Amino acid sequence: MSAESTLTPYLRSVLDGRWGPTRDVVRRQINDQALVPQSGLSLDDYRTRVLGQMKDMVPLGFPASGFRPEHGGTGDVGGAVTAIETLGYGDLSLMVKAGVQWGLFGGAIENLGTQEHHDTYVKGLIDLDVLGCFAMTETGHGSNVQQLETTATYLPETGEFEICSPTPGSRKDYIGGAAEHARFAAVFAQLVTGAPGEEPVSRGVHCFVVPIRDADGADMPGVTTSDCGYKGGLPGVDNGRILFDRVRIPRTNLLNRYADVAHDGTYSSPIESDNRRFFTMLGTLIRGRVTVGASAGAAGRLGLALAVKYALQRRQFQAPGGDTEMLLLDYRTHQRRLLPLVARAYAFAIAQNEVTAELHDMQTADPATVDPKELRRLETKAAAIKAGHTTLAQRAISEAREACGGAGYMSENLLPLLRGDIDVFTTFEGDNLVLTQLVAKEQLTAYADDVQGLDAVGWVRFVASMATSYALEKTAARQVVQTLLDDSDEDPENSALTHPGTQLRLLRNREDHLTRTAAARMRRAKEDDADALEVFTETQDHLIKVGESHIERIVLESFVEVIGRVEDRETRTVLKQVRNLFVYSLLEEDLGWFLMHRHVSVERAKAIRRGVNDLCGELRPYAHNLVDAFGVPDACFDIPMLRDEAFTG
Amino acid sequence: MSAESTLTPYLRSVLDGRWGPTRDVVRRQINDQALVPQSGLSLDDYRTRVLGQMKDMVPLGFPASGFRPEHGGTGDVGGAVTAIETLGYGDLSLMVKAGVQWGLFGGAIENLGTQEHHDTYVKGLIDLDVLGCFAMTETGHGSNVQQLETTATYLPETGEFEICSPTPGSRKDYIGGAAEHARFAAVFAQLVTGAPGEEPVSRGVHCFVVPIRDADGADMPGVTTSDCGYKGGLPGVDNGRILFDRVRIPRTNLLNRYADVAHDGTYSSPIESDNRRFFTMLGTLIRGRVTVGASAGAAGRLGLALAVKYALQRRQFQAPGGDTEMLLLDYRTHQRRLLPLVARAYAFAIAQNEVTAELHDMQTADPATVDPKELRRLETKAAAIKAGHTTLAQRAISEAREACGGAGYMSENLLPLLRGDIDVFTTFEGDNLVLTQLVAKEQLTAYADDVQGLDAVGWVRFVASMATSYALEKTAARQVVQTLLDDSDEDPENSALTHPGTQLRLLRNREDHLTRTAAARMRRAKEDDADALEVFTETQDHLIKVGESHIERIVLESFVEVIGRVEDRETRTVLKQVRNLFVYSLLEEDLGWFLMHRHVSVERAKAIRRGVNDLCGELRPYAHNLVDAFGVPDACFDIPMLRDEAFTG
Repeated sequence: MSAESTLTPYLRSVLDGRWGPTRDVVRRQINDQALVPQSGLSLDDYRTRVLGQMKDMVPLGFPASGFRPEHGGTGDVGGAVTAIETLGYGDLSLMVKAGVQWGLFGGAIENLGTQEHHDTYVKGLIDLDVLGCFAMTETGHGSNVQQLETTATYLPETGEFEICSPTPGSRKDYIGGAAEHARFAAVFAQLVTGAPGEEPVSRGVHCFVVPIRDADGADMPGVTTSDCGYKGGLPGVDNGRILFDRVRIPRTNLLNRYADVAHDGTYSSPIESDNRRFFTMLGTLIRGRVTVGASAGAAGRLGLALAVKYALQRRQFQAPGGDTEMLLLDYRTHQRRLLPLVARAYAFAIAQNEVTAELHDMQTADPATVDPKELRRLETKAAAIKAGHTTLAQRAISEAREACGGAGYMSENLLPLLRGDIDVFTTFEGDNLVLTQLVAKEQLTAYADDVQGLDAVGWVRFVASMATSYALEKTAARQVVQTLLDDSDEDPENSALTHPGTQLRLLRNREDHLTRTAAARMRRAKEDDADALEVFTETQDHLIKVGESHIERIVLESFVEVIGRVEDRETRTVLKQVRNLFVYSLLEEDLGWFLMHRHVSVERAKAIRRGVNDLCGELRPYAHNLVDAFGVPDACFDIPMLRDEAFTG
Repeated sequence: MSAESTLTPYLRSVLDGRWGPTRDVVRRQINDQALVPQSGLSLDDYRTRVLGQMKDMVPLGFPASGFRPEHGGTGDVGGAVTAIETLGYGDLSLMVKAGVQWGLFGGAIENLGTQEHHDTYVKGLIDLDVLGCFAMTETGHGSNVQQLETTATYLPETGEFEICSPTPGSRKDYIGGAAEHARFAAVFAQLVTGAPGEEPVSRGVHCFVVPIRDADGADMPGVTTSDCGYKGGLPGVDNGRILFDRVRIPRTNLLNRYADVAHDGTYSSPIESDNRRFFTMLGTLIRGRVTVGASAGAAGRLGLALAVKYALQRRQFQAPGGDTEMLLLDYRTHQRRLLPLVARAYAFAIAQNEVTAELHDMQTADPATVDPKELRRLETKAAAIKAGHTTLAQRAISEAREACGGAGYMSENLLPLLRGDIDVFTTFEGDNLVLTQLVAKEQLTAYADDVQGLDAVGWVRFVASMATSYALEKTAARQVVQTLLDDSDEDPENSALTHPGTQLRLLRNREDHLTRTAAARMRRAKEDDADALEVFTETQDHLIKVGESHIERIVLESFVEVIGRVEDRETRTVLKQVRNLFVYSLLEEDLGWFLMHRHVSVERAKAIRRGVNDLCGELRPYAHNLVDAFGVPDACFDIPMLRDEAFTG
């Protein structure tokens, strides 16, 4: 086989990673059933359509993958995540609705429940006999889950919990499935109970299974659901609101893996600290965050594939010395618009695969063997990649839309639908700004215990009081990264910028610098006249930059590691150019910082800008391989702007 | 009156500018008729609704403003533009449909037609008895109007033109009104004719009035219209496609102000050069570009007003030492997200007002007194502000949506509808990248004649051959700018960064530097072995940066001039802080460039970053004044996220 014909499949196998066969199952389903976003359907019809598509997926097996065999599943967490990720190549409404049912609702039952719950719900929720929703967010509180206002008060006289929405802001809101299809809700609420003879007190947020509709779809007594109606996208997801007016549920509907209430009202938990218990419970829900990042990534790749394919067919303005006009992708500005985003899509796809694999390994292992510190690291990494990947996807799809001009604004060409659907991914499963800040905080405190749950001021004071000043671990966790670092000059200015060691060092040094200086600024809160809130406010943008630089650094490390394992020479060469473009474009976007802090010289800065241009030119001949390797199903390309002669002359 | 109570109206009168009363007429209409975007209507219902809203606007008078009194109008071009701009505070579907009818179709008749056309169409098109569309763009060619493929061949035997769509790409596409409502089209086509005894030849693109539907709405013989269907937004605009199969129209349907065909087929024009004629005709259509920039600006301000008002009510995460949670706008990251965009919205609104006023003065003057060079400068300025303002609006609305979290994704809160509607503004009436490049080219060749219409290579060769090297005019066109420059140190590093002279100098120096170096790179095309296309490709991103830096410089100059005329002291003080934030945030975004080319020192760079933070903090107490002064109609604020207690606690 010629290099040309093998490059695409080799690249694809790198991107597909460990669950390639699962991806292919979903790709076939997207093609066979034309699972692409639609326009012109009523909300009702769209919702019904998507529910039907979910039912058709049950026999494919992956809905069962997310559950342990002993609970009724097949125990392939990575496969479950990857399958839902791949729906990002199809219709994000379907991806979200599937994610809510099997990932969020199912995940709450699986990870927060115990045997009774598994026995009662798992089989039915896989088969869709039990349709559920995930009722965490309230109108008043989204990002701040600890402050949720819904209450679940234990009544020892009847052995029931009473679920209430005591304030306007406690209304459950934006809940996928709550408007129409869900019969059960996993409700997050403040658990209130007391042992006999004691005053009932709040024990913090716990999760309860609450039936919200009867078999005919009518609201259960005390439950009032309503419909969020039209949104910026995702028309196939029936988002709704839920109010509870003294709704009684049996005591055993508390998902009691981490805490329980005895018949007499006595509260018990294997985890003593309220804070740690709360964050342990939240931590088990990590899968939603991984899935959302992964699916957004797929949607972003789809958008880029559409725009690059269009730019490889569409001509505009006379090419000099010829009869034909120039292909859009032969314009440098057009290359600059799309190719750095393609490079970034590669880097993030690879980092995302690693997160999925780590999640799989951790969630399929014996829970007793899982190091809580490692779990917390993975949670932070999942948050980091979720924030980075969804931001990238939104940007890629917007740029893709604009790069296709008027054609890109027609729904028949999918891009506007994709743009509307992806927009909320930066918000749900954790607002990206909040997540980026969380990532930064974990870096600054090196995953210290007892930091979680501190408010801004408490957290600033904690950092200020830390004995040691922060520094990035001197030894890289990955052998390959360490080798490359050892192989490059300590002063990056003396090493070639195309050397991965230099690239790693630049991103590590930036993160290290930002983290150290952020810690130093926090320490001012120790001074006598310091206002800790002011210190926090003044450093918040610095903190965000710590988080962003961390995200970019860990993505590069994944990318470097995977390239090191690629055996085909041409594939490796192309991937290295992709990595170079990824790094050069990151550096270019943050050139002000690198120059200001003298991490690059003026001469190198100019070389970086030129380098982005040169790399765009060098990768231009591989543009079709790069996007074909995404493995986007053909059904997505059967659109007028790629098919009809009117567009392509 | 206290300063607090006068600040908002003073700021508002600055933003409202010369056509304040017209703005108020439209604001009242938006309130009275609740002209805000809707969701859940069918395309048919939405289109009918918008057409009805247009009819209700006829008695308000501004539809007649855009036409000269001698043609049947009232001759207030600025009022016409400002009225349609203000619809950007309402429903952009209505704005676009009104803009197409009165601005584009009406503008073609008004500016390219002669008395017979004015007598035949103007009154009816004001009253909506004559519904028209503007059939310029084709599927194959959007940005490149000179290459349109529709033909209009003159047939001397019958004294008719025959309009044809000879290729798949020649289909008229995305034409607002073509799907359903328009009965007439202003069709841009290659005019083909020959004098008696000569071969017919193509004379370039001209504009023709073509009836496309009969009174019952059926396609005229030879005309085939179709519907673009669903788009990323603007559901009330019936965009469609038109194909012409040998459609005959009378000779007099050529809009013949700049060229005519005699009965025997002889072609004549007062403008000899085909190129100059083409660009003169295009130039008269400048009003569409001005209106699109202005309306996008209004929509952007609306988006920012929604997000800032939400951030002033919505609390999240515990405020230290208190029972309440913190307002979103008290977070530095939230301020940084919104306030620099508010500052930019001020700067662009003011520059936009100036363009509208200049357009008004030029289009209401005796045509014989208009200097063609000044007209061309205004065309370039309109292109610059269109590109800058629409890009800003898109960014502002996206940021506003995200800053409102889940609430921002609900259609009932308007932001997602606004986001879908605004998205195409960066594309229509000139793709922003193409326009920015045009702006840069005009800077590089100082509006030289004979440059228009050159292809990339021809243009590079022209620049290369220019005798003089470019330099920004040493004397500023505005007296106030010159005075401020004189009043500041030649080395900006020695002048306070809050001094407007320093700010102007930094932006002027950047533009000057970029333009000179771009010209120097072009001159390499003179070298023997130079490939002019390669030179063009290699410098295209540089060229775009010239255009962007020009846009920011002229916007600052407008802003500075207007601030200089503000008499109320507090208003002036606040506006100066807004200007500072505008400039600091521009500098921060391009810090890499300023450092790399040693236009700012490392110390100053750090001061800029700190300065953005400080200015955000200083403007925080005025945030409500700043957005109230936009004068957004109350109807836009009657939405759940601003009204319901569930959101604001």
